[in-house]
Amino acid sequence: MKNVVAGVDIGGTNTIIGFVDSEGKIIAEDRLSTPDYAFADDFVIALDEKLREMASGLKEVNIAGIGIGAPNANFNKGTIELAPNLRWKGIIPLVRLTERRTGLKTRITNDANAAALGEMLFGGAKGMKHFIILTLGTGLGSGIVVDGEVVYGHTGFAGELGHMTVAEGGRVCGCGRRGCLETYASATGLVRTVLALLSDRRDQSTLRELKSTDITSRRVAEAAAAGDLIAVEALDQTARMIALGIANAVIFSSPETIFLFGGLAKAGEALMEPVRRYADELVQPVFRGTFKIEPSGLPEANAAILGASALIWKEMK
Amino acid sequence: MKNVVAGVDIGGTNTIIGFVDSEGKIIAEDRLSTPDYAFADDFVIALDEKLREMASGLKEVNIAGIGIGAPNANFNKGTIELAPNLRWKGIIPLVRLTERRTGLKTRITNDANAAALGEMLFGGAKGMKHFIILTLGTGLGSGIVVDGEVVYGHTGFAGELGHMTVAEGGRVCGCGRRGCLETYASATGLVRTVLALLSDRRDQSTLRELKSTDITSRRVAEAAAAGDLIAVEALDQTARMIALGIANAVIFSSPETIFLFGGLAKAGEALMEPVRRYADELVQPVFRGTFKIEPSGLPEANAAILGASALIWKEMK
Repeated sequence: MKNVVAGVDIGGTNTIIGFVDSEGKIIAEDRLSTPDYAFADDFVIALDEKLREMASGLKEVNIAGIGIGAPNANFNKGTIELAPNLRWKGIIPLVRLTERRTGLKTRITNDANAAALGEMLFGGAKGMKHFIILTLGTGLGSGIVVDGEVVYGHTGFAGELGHMTVAEGGRVCGCGRRGCLETYASATGLVRTVLALLSDRRDQSTLRELKSTDITSRRVAEAAAAGDLIAVEALDQTARMIALGIANAVIFSSPETIFLFGGLAKAGEALMEPVRRYADELVQPVFRGTFKIEPSGLPEANAAILGASALIWKEMK
Repeated sequence: MKNVVAGVDIGGTNTIIGFVDSEGKIIAEDRLSTPDYAFADDFVIALDEKLREMASGLKEVNIAGIGIGAPNANFNKGTIELAPNLRWKGIIPLVRLTERRTGLKTRITNDANAAALGEMLFGGAKGMKHFIILTLGTGLGSGIVVDGEVVYGHTGFAGELGHMTVAEGGRVCGCGRRGCLETYASATGLVRTVLALLSDRRDQSTLRELKSTDITSRRVAEAAAAGDLIAVEALDQTARMIALGIANAVIFSSPETIFLFGGLAKAGEALMEPVRRYADELVQPVFRGTFKIEPSGLPEANAAILGASALIWKEMK
């Protein structure tokens, strides 16, 4: 019998399920349509059936446990709490429901913490005791590892660097306040910076020919590569804000490496180089040269499943 | 035989040495004049002699180890590194020197981390797994506890919340940059805020009758208590900056309590009340109501020695 862990990535549209072996190899994958299930109980029944179906297609496989990555997940309590992008309202005790139905050990955490665990077991952070991963997408998620363990804190919700206040009275954030890091340092933040520059500057820019809703981080990166001044400046300002967040994280936990993951991180060295330069400038001098900033070592397509499975694999290793 | 730990607080002027029992009671205390010793080797010889002298005056006492609190101390390496207020230049391997001379287990960390350990063993944080202590003095020091352990990080220097950038391009900091939290949120920061207000406002103020160098946080607190508008506003702005630092720390490690310690914390509720109110306003909403802000439970006169001794007591318990 070969041990696998079911890595489950619950998103607003799809739930991806993968059987992950101890080396981080995905030996089976399937999916459920998350909004098909009005109640979490129904979802758990469907998940249980899907796992049996997947296992029956393989021979000699033992499911050692279920690791779940989900928005607004609380590791300490095993719950999903008030997730705006899911139909399940209130506080959902998903770990208890899943363990009761499947009989399998289940753990849950949010996507960024799962990414940190994936990085630790299967990515670039193998053997590291202190590191941070920043997921740069619609928002900015973070997973913080101290002494080899993800920091969950007293509430189970620790590691929300996207909501570090970096500009008092700054941009409106989805959390209801202003000036949060993720309103600048994210794919969405980059687009907002482009809009601000288009209003402020008089430079010509191909981005002026797009509807606001058609401006994406990818288009900005392409325009910057083509020398568009607005795009170049927007990427630079975004890099500086990412670096500011990193500098403020370094003085907190002094990580060995900060990994960047997600859509915006795909801009590659065009982003990495200024982020490294600004972080060195913005950090307390005693920490200069003590940390690295690197792209995530996880394959983006499978990162969520690998990370979710790592919740269980970490306990087993 | 009764076990005690030698708690040693190395300051630029005095080194205080206390024998601390397992309950946090100080059963003997003495001191050395730090600048009398041009080299750390000489200091260690004098420390060894002093410890013997102190022990000989007591009966049935066994020194179980030596805990040292010192500026620029590195717990991971057991060193004091480039401390501007000490005569000992460069990187001093004080733990190795002390262990070799005394034969006793020795540990070292900086004052704020020692305060965190003291709070955990002998103060208000007994039994807490996640908390932070802020020491509000000339600067702002911090000790961060996650899962019951002080966060030292990859370098051994983690927990420098005083150097969180909170105002880009803001006040000049001793670290060589601008806008660090401690340039606003400290006793010195409060005085700088008074000077800024005296230049900006036209309000009458008793503080205008003092030389700048005679304005102290204590005098500002007294003036505020007497209704001085400049002093009241300065305390309020300082409270808001402390709260901003706390809010940015809470999203990182989600502590149960943030303890305030040191000169500025003595302003009591006049400071605590607005700090609590602003922290609630400035923190990401999901953390509202999840943390407390309290004065340190350590007696200020003995806190440094208690904290230093806790380095050893924690390992023994």
